[in-house]
Amino acid sequence: MLTDSQRERFDVVLVSPRNPLNIGAVARAMANFGFDRLTVVAPYEPHWREARSAVGAPELLARAQQVTSLAEAVRDCTLVLGTGTLTHRKAEQPVLRVDAVPPVAHHELDRGGRIALVFGPEKHGLTREDLSYCHVLVEIPTDLRQPSMNLGQAAAVCLYELASRVFSVSEEPRTAGIANSPGPPSLPTSGNLEVLARLIEEVMVAARYSPKNMQAANQHDLRLLLRRLHLNQADSRRALGLFRRILWRLRIPRS
Amino acid sequence: MLTDSQRERFDVVLVSPRNPLNIGAVARAMANFGFDRLTVVAPYEPHWREARSAVGAPELLARAQQVTSLAEAVRDCTLVLGTGTLTHRKAEQPVLRVDAVPPVAHHELDRGGRIALVFGPEKHGLTREDLSYCHVLVEIPTDLRQPSMNLGQAAAVCLYELASRVFSVSEEPRTAGIANSPGPPSLPTSGNLEVLARLIEEVMVAARYSPKNMQAANQHDLRLLLRRLHLNQADSRRALGLFRRILWRLRIPRS
Repeated sequence: MLTDSQRERFDVVLVSPRNPLNIGAVARAMANFGFDRLTVVAPYEPHWREARSAVGAPELLARAQQVTSLAEAVRDCTLVLGTGTLTHRKAEQPVLRVDAVPPVAHHELDRGGRIALVFGPEKHGLTREDLSYCHVLVEIPTDLRQPSMNLGQAAAVCLYELASRVFSVSEEPRTAGIANSPGPPSLPTSGNLEVLARLIEEVMVAARYSPKNMQAANQHDLRLLLRRLHLNQADSRRALGLFRRILWRLRIPRS
Repeated sequence: MLTDSQRERFDVVLVSPRNPLNIGAVARAMANFGFDRLTVVAPYEPHWREARSAVGAPELLARAQQVTSLAEAVRDCTLVLGTGTLTHRKAEQPVLRVDAVPPVAHHELDRGGRIALVFGPEKHGLTREDLSYCHVLVEIPTDLRQPSMNLGQAAAVCLYELASRVFSVSEEPRTAGIANSPGPPSLPTSGNLEVLARLIEEVMVAARYSPKNMQAANQHDLRLLLRRLHLNQADSRRALGLFRRILWRLRIPRS
């Protein structure tokens, strides 16, 4: 189970969930396995209200955060885990089997990071754009004839793995100091990386490097690249400084 | 994932499920993780019909077996795994955490046994009598503040563990011979043990060992005892022979 400090740094994020029963099921699995922080991105309002007001809904549903974009939901996170079936597409990020995720998550929480575990809408899962915010994709190994899992059940399996394999270890004294360590972690958050990505895009446009019809694709690749690099906070600050300077130079009117 | 031979010797059993959505969810998790044989004990008929006819219901639901008692459902099984939360009661059988079950299940399938994984009704779970048919209880470690899992989610977690940790190993050539080994396994089935238990009860009554008000309790303890002993087929046959003989002797009218 989660320590209090870990619980505060682990977010479950549902992108545009449709079925109120599924929302309730995810919340229930969270309560079963000791997770506490739920964020919902752009839910269908009537169903979201229905899920929150359901009889017996776990208390964490009432406290859930509601935001309009995935970027906003994962802004403060240092490790964003996307979930889904990869049967029909090639992954652009590293893919981990769900049973390989606990050590990675453990390490991230130990060094003071913040994690988001992201689930897509029931019908089609996370879009390619959603996935571009993810550092790692998590896959549950399923039968090829019926690979697609129900949202509530997929969440139960992921949270079970994380709760039963990671956090029991972390309750040992070894990590107590880390949980109490002062100051922000020295890792760039997803929000930091977005600021950097936007700045680099501006630079690409200002430098006429990025023709209009390629801008969306470049933006996508850039997001993936920045996450693959595992920049630390100082790298990220340095890159920001450099690109700001470049942009300023590019925009000086030529005479 | 399961090999075909293993698939045929692994039953998922639902005792008196109420909610058609839960029945559908269990069937979906089975399809996701490559399980195929579902047995339903004494379902509430309208809901059972509704679950089977649901749009998109996995094909295995249509093929599911329907029986009237748990004894009948597990008659041919050599290892019966009961599931549930043990927060409020003391277990009478060995309890295994769900992640410790795969090696046990693997071993049982390798030696030609047949396994049932049994889930109780949504409201109260398996009764004490149901549990007396189980060799081992399986527990999913959950948060003490919200220990009780949704049926479909509990099934997903158990089947995920079994599929991802046991059966991948068993597809190696090592077990191919076992899968094809001829003849029945030399293990007594749950049905064999029931026959033996009934016979011993008759003996106890005939010997006036078991006063009427103690018969239910004795029956219960006897079932547990026979499963704890791990009798093999020959032991079981020998015991049957002996007790039949004793019963016959006891019933000879005294002059």
